[in-house]
Amino acid sequence: MIFKQLYEKDSSTYTYLIACEETGQSVLIDPVIDTVERDLLALKELGLGLTYTLETHVHADHLTGAKKLKEFAGSQIVVPAMEQLPCADLGVSEGTPFMVGNIKLEPLFTPGHTGKHHAYLLDNGMQKVVFTGDALLIEACGRTDFQSGDPVKLYESITQKFFTLPDETLVYPAHDYEGRQITTIGQEKNRNPRLGNNKTQDEFVAIMNNLDLPYPRKIDFAVPGNEACGECPGDVPEEFRGPCDVVDLPQELIRAVRAGDQG
Amino acid sequence: MIFKQLYEKDSSTYTYLIACEETGQSVLIDPVIDTVERDLLALKELGLGLTYTLETHVHADHLTGAKKLKEFAGSQIVVPAMEQLPCADLGVSEGTPFMVGNIKLEPLFTPGHTGKHHAYLLDNGMQKVVFTGDALLIEACGRTDFQSGDPVKLYESITQKFFTLPDETLVYPAHDYEGRQITTIGQEKNRNPRLGNNKTQDEFVAIMNNLDLPYPRKIDFAVPGNEACGECPGDVPEEFRGPCDVVDLPQELIRAVRAGDQG
Repeated sequence: MIFKQLYEKDSSTYTYLIACEETGQSVLIDPVIDTVERDLLALKELGLGLTYTLETHVHADHLTGAKKLKEFAGSQIVVPAMEQLPCADLGVSEGTPFMVGNIKLEPLFTPGHTGKHHAYLLDNGMQKVVFTGDALLIEACGRTDFQSGDPVKLYESITQKFFTLPDETLVYPAHDYEGRQITTIGQEKNRNPRLGNNKTQDEFVAIMNNLDLPYPRKIDFAVPGNEACGECPGDVPEEFRGPCDVVDLPQELIRAVRAGDQG
Repeated sequence: MIFKQLYEKDSSTYTYLIACEETGQSVLIDPVIDTVERDLLALKELGLGLTYTLETHVHADHLTGAKKLKEFAGSQIVVPAMEQLPCADLGVSEGTPFMVGNIKLEPLFTPGHTGKHHAYLLDNGMQKVVFTGDALLIEACGRTDFQSGDPVKLYESITQKFFTLPDETLVYPAHDYEGRQITTIGQEKNRNPRLGNNKTQDEFVAIMNNLDLPYPRKIDFAVPGNEACGECPGDVPEEFRGPCDVVDLPQELIRAVRAGDQG
């Protein structure tokens, strides 16, 4: 298996590249429109094409790179099936593994940050590995005060879907704002200040309802843009338009990634 | 592969259980005398025997469980070859992989905390995984002010042997004092306050030489005891003698672990 953790600075987003060496199939989990060229360069360097992009949810803090990656690399856009996005090529649901070549990703329905959020679980033969999206972060969790957020549901998702995994399970979040890269289920059960140490649902809900967070900078265009799989809406403010306006990339890069595509 | 991270509270030590499912061979990295029964129960629960115990170095903060585990479970005692401990059954050296069934552990000579410290590197097929002993800890490192410690050597070990590994490499330390379980090479390169962010050797040495740490509680008996592979010296103080005095364990536990031994 090929695995890379990639970081997008502006929204502090982690994008995960996973590829099956035997088949050459690959996926980018939660790619960001700002780093489409960086992602393609990473694929090229590894001699890979891009088979799929896969979203954990409709993001409010950044635009997905899914649509541009499809245009440049020919990847298929995969989202939680219940999102019912007409722009997506494939939908995933809990109970039905999503295969990237021989690598099995198990979708976990984990609402609370958004109503249709999914995490993805795999087993690397040594540890279980869960890509928790914005549901569980390192010593934190996604906010629950906009879109279809619901702290009661997030508490249930984390305690029932994540905290029941083995303590050694590796947790790769969609964000970290302090340069941390990884945690484990055991570590979060012990140390997460919002719901570690057996905090009750009421305690968690009280914490979440009193975070007093600022209005997200990009939410007004990111949500409609992500519901269109990363099509930039017309009203993206000037300061954020740069990545939307990228319509050409070096032909040699595009050719290399398309040539790498075995999927 | 079977993998478990086990924790010993009194010395905040992590012991790692790794076993090869195909062959049934197993190893405990850095077992602690206080938790020998807990380790045997973990093996029994997994239907495993114990093939090897493996030390990263001669510890000063706890007594190893190696000798008692050998007595109870029949395991072989493995240490860095250059330690030249007459009590050991096998020695490992950088450049010669140590096989636990089909699992390949690569010893990395990483002096600085002690003069003969070794770390162990494996590849789980998704990430590289390094058991860093006391050389590199989470946002910290082992002290260099006793035994054969040397901050210049530790700087070289960490920057040349660890920081040259891929950023995604999982780092499992021998200790954490705040309940954290894991870090990555990338995270330590960014965040380690002693040598992250490209700190120079001089900066690191200055930090290490000014830590002003207390004299280790157990060093006076732990070092000679560990040089004897966990044989308790006669002068272990009363408050720490408990684990030394354990000479019997339930026969059913011993039988189960010995029956599980395929190694």
